[in-house]
Amino acid sequence: MEKLSNLDSEQLFVGIDGGGTKCCACLCTANGNVLGTGVAGPSNPFHGEAQAQASIVQAVELAFADASLHIFDMANIIVGAGLAGMNVPAVYESMSRWQHPFKKMYFTTDLHIACLGAHNQDEGAVIVTGTGSCGYSLVNGKTTMIGGHGFPVGDKGSGAWLGLEAVKAVLLAHDKLGPQSLLNTLISNHLNATGIMIVEKMGVAKSNDYAQLARFVFEAANANDEVAIKILREGASYIDSVAEKLWETKPGRMSFIGGLSEVLIPWLKPSVATKLSPAINPPELGAVYFARQTLCSNII
Amino acid sequence: MEKLSNLDSEQLFVGIDGGGTKCCACLCTANGNVLGTGVAGPSNPFHGEAQAQASIVQAVELAFADASLHIFDMANIIVGAGLAGMNVPAVYESMSRWQHPFKKMYFTTDLHIACLGAHNQDEGAVIVTGTGSCGYSLVNGKTTMIGGHGFPVGDKGSGAWLGLEAVKAVLLAHDKLGPQSLLNTLISNHLNATGIMIVEKMGVAKSNDYAQLARFVFEAANANDEVAIKILREGASYIDSVAEKLWETKPGRMSFIGGLSEVLIPWLKPSVATKLSPAINPPELGAVYFARQTLCSNII
Repeated sequence: MEKLSNLDSEQLFVGIDGGGTKCCACLCTANGNVLGTGVAGPSNPFHGEAQAQASIVQAVELAFADASLHIFDMANIIVGAGLAGMNVPAVYESMSRWQHPFKKMYFTTDLHIACLGAHNQDEGAVIVTGTGSCGYSLVNGKTTMIGGHGFPVGDKGSGAWLGLEAVKAVLLAHDKLGPQSLLNTLISNHLNATGIMIVEKMGVAKSNDYAQLARFVFEAANANDEVAIKILREGASYIDSVAEKLWETKPGRMSFIGGLSEVLIPWLKPSVATKLSPAINPPELGAVYFARQTLCSNII
Repeated sequence: MEKLSNLDSEQLFVGIDGGGTKCCACLCTANGNVLGTGVAGPSNPFHGEAQAQASIVQAVELAFADASLHIFDMANIIVGAGLAGMNVPAVYESMSRWQHPFKKMYFTTDLHIACLGAHNQDEGAVIVTGTGSCGYSLVNGKTTMIGGHGFPVGDKGSGAWLGLEAVKAVLLAHDKLGPQSLLNTLISNHLNATGIMIVEKMGVAKSNDYAQLARFVFEAANANDEVAIKILREGASYIDSVAEKLWETKPGRMSFIGGLSEVLIPWLKPSVATKLSPAINPPELGAVYFARQTLCSNII
């Protein structure tokens, strides 16, 4: 990280990467040394602002504890937060009015910080597949976003989408309108339920609850289960088309990140998969870069 | 309706047909004469028990007002209620504990009363497509239920499913990952939004909100929109398979009911569509039959 000439070298930064399942915080010095990290619960403000704010504060506290800085003052730190759902204008506006406990706080999308982290600069593209799915590129200061519309209207290929499609398939099989398959057994065993009892268990399920079921789709598909393979191919085909659309923006570099990326890559087209580059740094470090960039541009 | 030998002939009954969008009440005398009807808001207890209970009470009040019976006592009427969501065991148990204001109240599923109403007896099958979708047969006292798993895990071919698929298609087109089509124009105009603003508008949408969009799928499909036609064919194909499964139970008679039935029938296979019989009476009258049957069997 470059030197911050106009800033107090003692200034501490926290980068936040917040999504539907968890909130990762990274506590850094002004020159970019990581002092500690913390992980808390869901922090997609589109699905609940109070929960997102509580998770952010808790993740910051855990990062300080991890750094063995038990005596600290939140009012002294500068936070950069990249959160899922911040692409929705009303969510951004509402979160920006949060009376947060920090010295300064800057918000952007989870995609922006993922891109900054992955490429260590502003130029590049990322496809994030975790609870949700989204494509993003930042080229010559211009951003392009593909997908990221959230559950259940979008996020095809994501953990939540895979989990929902799996539950649909299990219920079709229960009605004998779809094939019996290993996927049914895995999901039914996991939920300890069949048929209408599955509906009852998933009655108030949110995107992260569905995402918990995604691993069974991979497990069944890897054991040649046709139902699971069909679901995975449909999801992967969407992600392929997102990648192809992003390459049209000439991002130079593209990384595939998020909790599902590793297991999903083998299902992508070879022409998409072979052009991916590893992410250089994690999104939460991208969030620290973002906070520093914003602070400096504000000072200038 | 047969005579109720063991009952007070002055006894008034109310039949309730409750679904995701509305609650229909029918006030009848003991010998089956309809005195008044009332319609109130959503009454699927799976999506909110307090709302469902409030809608039921309001629909009963409106039925009494319609009958010009402004002075009445809820504590004197016997209510039969067939509600969507009552097939979920926990919902049935919870609703059964409701401290309702009526003399007696008997609960069953919306499908059971639809079947009793449609065939004026216990034998027959119904496919209901409105906000949700479900198939049901009652043959020799044995019930078979296909689908009815609710939104978003099931209810394929329903209004909510059609609306959700339409929104998905519009968002794909916005990302240039799907074809531009009349459906996009109709949905965008109706919501007065495009892209991420659609996500914002549908952020807290429930099944009945999505169901409001179903008519645009029919409108576009009837104007030869390929995206809408593909969605409708997939939904109708599911309903075809539900009908074929139900015929295996040998129901004798099958009716297709609910708010979408009329517009959906032309999309069904001819072999399914031509075997349908009209419903003899509406579900809310089926709910009155159910209340009388249950009361009589309790007296015996």
